[in-house]
Order: sequence, then C-alpha cells, then structure tokens
Amino acid sequence: MSASVTANTDRYVVGVDFGTLSGRAVVVRVADGRELGSAVSEYRHGVIERHLPDGTGPLPPDWALQSPEDWREVLRHAVPAAVAEAGVDPAAVIGVATDFTACTVLPTLADGTPLCETPGLAGEPHAWPKLWKHHAAQGQADRINALAAERGEKWAARYGGKQSSEWEFAKALQVLQEAPEIFERCERWIEAADWIVWELTGAESRNACTAGYKGIFQDGSYPSEDFLAALDPRFADFPATRLVHPDGLAALGSRVGGLSEQAAEWTGLPAGIAVAAGNVDAHVTAPAARAVDPGKLLAIMGTSTCHVVNGTDLADVPGICGVVDGGISAGFYGYEAGQSAVGDIFAWWTKITGQGHEELTAAAAGQPIGGHGLIALDWMGGNRSILVDHDLSGIVVGLTLATRPEEIYRALLEATAFGTRVIVEAFRAGGVPVHEFVVAGGLKKNSFLMQLYADILRCPVSVAVSDQAPALGSAIHAAVAAGAYPDVSAAAEAMGSVQTAAYVPDPARADAYDVLFAEYRALHDAFGAADGALHRLRRIRNAALA
Amino acid sequence: MSASVTANTDRYVVGVDFGTLSGRAVVVRVADGRELGSAVSEYRHGVIERHLPDGTGPLPPDWALQSPEDWREVLRHAVPAAVAEAGVDPAAVIGVATDFTACTVLPTLADGTPLCETPGLAGEPHAWPKLWKHHAAQGQADRINALAAERGEKWAARYGGKQSSEWEFAKALQVLQEAPEIFERCERWIEAADWIVWELTGAESRNACTAGYKGIFQDGSYPSEDFLAALDPRFADFPATRLVHPDGLAALGSRVGGLSEQAAEWTGLPAGIAVAAGNVDAHVTAPAARAVDPGKLLAIMGTSTCHVVNGTDLADVPGICGVVDGGISAGFYGYEAGQSAVGDIFAWWTKITGQGHEELTAAAAGQPIGGHGLIALDWMGGNRSILVDHDLSGIVVGLTLATRPEEIYRALLEATAFGTRVIVEAFRAGGVPVHEFVVAGGLKKNSFLMQLYADILRCPVSVAVSDQAPALGSAIHAAVAAGAYPDVSAAAEAMGSVQTAAYVPDPARADAYDVLFAEYRALHDAFGAADGALHRLRRIRNAALA
Repeated sequence: MSASVTANTDRYVVGVDFGTLSGRAVVVRVADGRELGSAVSEYRHGVIERHLPDGTGPLPPDWALQSPEDWREVLRHAVPAAVAEAGVDPAAVIGVATDFTACTVLPTLADGTPLCETPGLAGEPHAWPKLWKHHAAQGQADRINALAAERGEKWAARYGGKQSSEWEFAKALQVLQEAPEIFERCERWIEAADWIVWELTGAESRNACTAGYKGIFQDGSYPSEDFLAALDPRFADFPATRLVHPDGLAALGSRVGGLSEQAAEWTGLPAGIAVAAGNVDAHVTAPAARAVDPGKLLAIMGTSTCHVVNGTDLADVPGICGVVDGGISAGFYGYEAGQSAVGDIFAWWTKITGQGHEELTAAAAGQPIGGHGLIALDWMGGNRSILVDHDLSGIVVGLTLATRPEEIYRALLEATAFGTRVIVEAFRAGGVPVHEFVVAGGLKKNSFLMQLYADILRCPVSVAVSDQAPALGSAIHAAVAAGAYPDVSAAAEAMGSVQTAAYVPDPARADAYDVLFAEYRALHDAFGAADGALHRLRRIRNAALA
Repeated sequence: MSASVTANTDRYVVGVDFGTLSGRAVVVRVADGRELGSAVSEYRHGVIERHLPDGTGPLPPDWALQSPEDWREVLRHAVPAAVAEAGVDPAAVIGVATDFTACTVLPTLADGTPLCETPGLAGEPHAWPKLWKHHAAQGQADRINALAAERGEKWAARYGGKQSSEWEFAKALQVLQEAPEIFERCERWIEAADWIVWELTGAESRNACTAGYKGIFQDGSYPSEDFLAALDPRFADFPATRLVHPDGLAALGSRVGGLSEQAAEWTGLPAGIAVAAGNVDAHVTAPAARAVDPGKLLAIMGTSTCHVVNGTDLADVPGICGVVDGGISAGFYGYEAGQSAVGDIFAWWTKITGQGHEELTAAAAGQPIGGHGLIALDWMGGNRSILVDHDLSGIVVGLTLATRPEEIYRALLEATAFGTRVIVEAFRAGGVPVHEFVVAGGLKKNSFLMQLYADILRCPVSVAVSDQAPALGSAIHAAVAAGAYPDVSAAAEAMGSVQTAAYVPDPARADAYDVLFAEYRALHDAFGAADGALHRLRRIRNAALA
C-alpha cells in the first residue's frame, strides 16, 4: 500500500445526494470507501405541483417546482447528522461533493440569490426552481427540435435528435415566453447541481456534465445566437448573459473551491475543505459501482432506469439521451440513455392487482420461459430511448382467460429487459462497446429480475454493493477533489465496490428469451413508428379529456 | 281476441332448458306467455372432466363429458316442481318442449339406450356423451377442414369455411379413430337435443336445427360417402347408418310425438300431450324475445355471446358459424355467429383486479369516450366469428402508469361491442340485413353495457323481458307443437316479450365510438391475419408448456 492510502485510513469525505423528495448525506472513509454514517432530510415542500408556499395557485398541469430552502436544509441537518452517526471527528473530513437530479434549474441574481427569494417575487411561479419533471415546456421543446431539424444544427445528433422538454433551454424559453419580466430579472440560469455548490463555496461554477447533457454545450459552445434569435429575438443572448462562466466548465471531480465560512457553519465541517464540481445523480454513481471503464454500462434501476457508459470515441448513436465529452468522467465520452418507467411499471401492476411484488415474483418465477404466451411493450411512461417519444404507451399481447396476474407481471419484467436490450444493441451498432451490465438502484435487490436481465442481455450482470451509491459516488468525487486520489478512476478502484458478474447468462434460457425478444422487437418497430396507432390513441385521449 | 286465444288462458305449456350445469323447467300460460312457475335441477355429475362416475380416469386434457341420468333427473324433478310452483292443474298442460346445449352428442343403441348405460361400457370414456365444450377432437376437425378445402366441398362455405372441433362429425371421427370398438357398437350418433325428446316420446326424431348447424346437413344431404371415405374408409357410411332418420328432419315447433307413459310418470304431465322437436338453447330463444323477423339479430349474452338472425335469402357470409334452412324457425334461413368469450372476459378482469363488476362499472361509467386512451382486442377466448381462429389471444393497447383498473374494464366492454360490430357489418356486407339488436342472457341487466352496445352498433338495442328466455322459448315451441298457434312467429307475438328499443344510440357518442372502432378494426385486421404474432406466441407457449 502506498503512503497516501495509509494516510487515507484516517481521512473522510462527505457525499450529498439531492433526490426528488429528500437529500441524503453519507460519510465515507477515503481509504476504502467504507460508509460510516448517513442521514436523510425530507424536503418540507416536496414537489410543488399545486400551490406556491405563499398560497399562490393553482399551478397549471405538468408543473413541478422545488424550494431552494429545502435543499439548504439538507446541508444544515443531514450532513451534521451523518457525521454524528459516523462518529468521526469533523476535522478529519477533507472534502465534500454533491449530486443532484437534473435538469433541475433555477433563475438567480448574479450573486446566486434565487429569484423566488428576491423581495416581491415569492408569488411568481416562474421565479421558482423547475424540477426535472416539470413537463410544461413541451411546446418550447417541440419548437427547438423542429427548428434544429430544419436548420440541420450539428449538436442535435448528440441528443439522439431530440431535446427534452425537461432540459435547460426549453425551460428557459418557457420563462421568457410566459413571464418575460421574470426572464428579464434572471441574471443566471443555473442547474441546481451547480447552485448547491455555489451555496457551499460562495462562488459560481458550472460542471461539464449538466452543461453537456442538459445545456446543449457541445464542442466548446452553446447553440448559436442565430439559432436562438430564430426561436425568439429576446433569446439570442441567453447563453452569453445567463449561462457562460468566465472560468469555463469544471471537470467532474475537480475542486471548484473551498467550503465557505457560512457553509462550514451549516454543515459543521471545516471551512476551506475541498468542494467538488456539481454532478448528476445517475452519472456520479459510475465510480461507486466501479463502472468507469469503457464497456461497463451502468444502469441505475429504480422507478425509471438511467444508463450511462463511457466510450473512448465520439460515436453517433441515434435515440440516446446524449453524449458529452467528460460527461461521466474526464477523458471519456460519456453516453446516456434511459427508460422512462421501469420499477414504476411493476408498481403500477401491483396497484392494478392489489398483489405485492414478492407474491407476484414468487408465482412468476416457476414458469417456463414463454409459458405465459405474452409479450408486453414497456412504454407505460413513454419511451426515452431509443424512440425518444413520450406519446407512446404500453401494450400487452397474448392474453387469455387463463392469464394470471403474475404472468402479466413477469411479461412486464421481461419487457423492461427487452427495452434495455434494444438500447444495448443500439450502443453496439453505433460503435459504443458494451460487455458488462452493472446495476445500482433499488431494483438490484430483485435477484429474479437481475438473472432475467443477464439471460435476456446475454451479458454478465454486476451489482453495486452500496445501497446509497449516488451519495457514495459523490464522496468519491470529493476524495478526488481533495487530492486523495489522482483521478476518479483511481478513486473508484479504491472506494467503489461491485459484485462483479453476480449473475451470468444461462445459455438455454438466453436462447429461449431470444425467441421472445424477436417478437418484442417486431412489436417495438411496428408500434414505435411515427404517427401510428399509439399516437392516434393519445390524441383521442387528449381530445376527450380536454 | 280470437276464440283460440281465449281458450288458451286456461291452458299451459312446459319448456325445459338443458344447460351446461343444470336444467331448468318453466310453466307458461299459452295465452300470453306468462311464466307461472319454474324449477332447476343441478346435474349431479356436472361436467365430467377428470374421472368417469365409476372412477375410470384421469381423462386426457380437453375432454368434457356428461351423464344422461343427470338429464333424466331434470324431467323427474324440475318439471313437477315447476308445475307445483305454478299451482296449475297438470291436466291443463297441453305440450312440452326442450332445448339443449349443442353440439352435445352421444352414441346409443338403436333403441336409444346410451352406450355408457350398456352393460360393460360404463368404464369406456368414448361411450359417454360428449359435452359441447369437449375440445379433444381438434385433430379430426383440422383434417375435415383441410380435406373439405382441398376438395372444394360445397357445404364448407355454409360454416364460414370451418367445422368446429365441437361438432358432430369431428367428435364421431374421434370415437372411430381412438375407440373403433365403441364406434362399432354405436348404432345411433345423436344430439342430446334429440335424445331427450326420444326419452319423452319413446321414439327417435332428428331436428332441423342441430342437423344443420352441427351435423353438416345442407341442401338435403350429409357429406358424400366419397368425402367421408377419404377421411377414413370406416367413416364412409357414418351418416347412413347412424344419423339418418326415415322420417327426415323435424321442423322446429313441430309435434314429433306424444308424451310416453314412462315420461308422463316422470314428469307428472298427461300422457299423450304434444312433444316438440328438439332445439338448441340459443336458437330457441328467438321467439321468447320476439326476434324471429328478419333483421332482428338476437344476441344471447352471457359468458360467451351467440348471435342468431333470420334472413329471407341464402347468403354467403364468410366467418359465421353457419346458415341453416329453418335453423331458427321454418321459412327462413337461420344464421348463427358468435363470440367465444364476453362475460368471461369481464369476469377474468375482476379476478385479475380483485374488484367487482359493479364497482368497476360505476368507476368506468363517468369517463368521456376515449378518455382512457385504450383499445383492446376481445380474443381472450379466441375468435369464433368472423376470424374463426381459436389460436388468437387478447391484446390491450395504450396503457400508461395512470391507467386504472376500471379503464381497462371499460376497454374490455367496448372491445366486445366492437367485436359484435364486426359481425354485424359482416352480415350486412354478406347481404343479411340487421336493423335491431335484441339481447337475452345474463348481461342484459348491465344497462351501461347495453347503452354502450347501442352507441357502438349505432342500432337500437331491445331487451328480452324474461330472465329464463331459453326455457320460455321452449314453451313457445311447445304451444306451437300443441296446435295452440299456427306457427312460431304467431306464438312469439303472443307469448314472447321484449322491451323494444330499450336503448337507442346517442349520435354524439356513436360518433366518438366510430373513431375508436376504426382503431379496433385496424388492430383486428393486423393481428387477425393468418400466422401472425399471436400464432407465434401461441406456439411458443405450447412448446414451453409441453
């Protein structure tokens, strides 16, 4: 062991994971990644969907906001509580790092003050942070996509051809068009991932990950003024005035500043310790599961699944969410793809049937492959990759009077694995190798599901050891920012942990699933086509409910 | 009122309906069809699927037998009990008629003794009556259909191109091939509908309905000896030796004999009173619901739906179950079609969800049409008409994480109505007018469903008043056989009852459903095509379970 590792046995880092409903802090030993203590702060306002804290409302459909004060509470309560639980001397903490949901984004003044906390603006909905799942900017996203396609914008292909309504430009354009006076007051348009770092350091920074995946920053620049002016003349200078930072983008794992006196007071940690660049909850998880090397596709499987994988080359993969230079870790092209609903689909079926996951899994597990005679399409939450179409919906085919709840449940499990296989095959076809499937997130505990993925993907499935892998991933970035390791890969090697090839494909089962996958793929291509039956049904539904 | 009707006020008839699990007798006033008393006998052996009454077994899959003694019990118990409940003098009963499930068929000696009651044969499965839902003769049906197509047999088109494995020839051929010694002992191969009449009169007769729909009797003859010899040389003389009756076929509503002394003793009814020709439970219902006139399509809606409609002309309607001259009532061409599963589908969904019909209907009723965004294909029990394909299975399209159990329930209700509309449109396209939809059977009580059918069919829905319409239909035939009315139409006018146009289509709703029907039809045609995804899934399932 080297001297630095020996020293690390008495040094600690703190990782803080900001989720949709709460924030979690974890205290980790730098030497080996051991998690010594953790604590959670629930957001007092949760997701703001109906009324602002001052009672203003109701908000229109598809809105989702959050309160910056809820995030600060995580620093004030979860961090010291985690340190206390760990029983370590705060003075031995050498760094802190954070990860956030994305694209969660807010308008601030030039000093970082959220507009919603500016006198007189607490009752302005557009002054509040827009949570990732704020879906009310679809019109703006549609316009951006149509114009990009029309003009052949080069950056469009980096996002599988489509900007999501969830991302920075669509949400900002919504503010501009619906509340120009708020847009006028907005001096910074900043990801919560970067804002929380600003709160910790007292200085603004912008991380490479969110700028690339959510902010259309590609090949050193944002979309051109020309393009933006064509969207709206008032939007032409949006990046120059509200996004660009003089120091450029901070690499993941880099130190962007020291912990401010204010933040030291909140957290109980020593002032001046390293604070790492902001990061995204999915991407930050890769080192926690030692999934940094090219070819290791990390899937964070929970209510939805997010896939991230590093590649050595820049490849054009249609239908993925994005590819960003250094988007997962410096030195690689980071690719992201996703499935809009995974655990959410299984939960939906438990709600339909009134039966629990364990009961359904146990009943489904005994069946021979294909014995249910079913194929499902896993589009109950739309399709994020590779069709990038949220107007799609789910299908179950092959039902008989003898079909039992657990058989449909199993078909749904299989459908999500088939959906993953489509993504893996798209990566491979596009020139991004995938040879190992690494799982983090709540669904890793379902061993029947994990084996099913191994068989269907015909690929070993490794499983992250940590149950709080994003927070551990942040801690790893903190260790790098503090200089304890030379880079994220080295830190991942020492601090991350994974059960490699915990599940391996069974050739006979893989053969049997191949037959079903051919049916899935045929349905996928038939129903996934542009303006088909599912789109007509969606229009009929929307008209009926209007 | 005429003199005959006045006299009929003191005269009564008995109708007996033999179902799958029980037989029901009803006592009806001849003058006006008023039901004065009824009684049910459950079959002691129910459906014999695993072991014969003597313990022989287990039977192979898909077998379904019944016991003739269970049927006699209905005559001995339900009939006198119904007369007692009615409080009428048995001497005032002038006729009795029966209807039966079909094709339920049995081998007997020349005197009508069931082979299973012949010494030494009680342990021979093939000596027992085969219930309509005995599905173990599919191989024989396939061979009959292939050969008929190959030879261009003219009668094939009368059955929509396909003989069912449920019918007379397939079941007889199964006996011949699997138990040639039983086939040798069989002196009559007779529908239970005719056998029960034999028990009542002591003399053999054959009715026009079952001979036509189930026995391939068309244009005055059975399939040729040539054709049958090509199936199996030993089968060549099957109709001549085991089906043909010297008196030919008895018209529905005709008197085929008087009640025997033996049957009079069983039933407590006067010996010598009129006994009508045998009949089928679905077809016999038409006069009970006054659905005898051409253009009135009667749907007996329960676990499955059977459609019967009279036409003035012989038309070629692809995909129907059959067309028989006088098959519903003398003087018309009787057309039959069907849906394999209707109420069964709704019941299946209540089992999947654990929620009741009332609860689901109430929750579904409030939604705007198309608001669920769903389309289902109602093939959970295969498709009887117009695709005639029992390897098809059901589909639900348009599912989202917000889809609720009652929305799928409603989509299933709609799917069965769309399936009916396909049948109605096939009749019309084939030249058989349909201008009124008359419903009998258990589902007529569901007023939400009835209105939905009216809207989707864009056709008034009339509802049979009687809750025991088949038994009432038999009683009407008894009255005709007894000479109280000149024909079934006249008797239906006096004794049948229907709430005409109880539900009428709402133009706006009909328009909205038209849009959904277009989607149903597109899916129907795509998935109903020969050897498509559903057939592949069925083969995968069968192989997995083999």
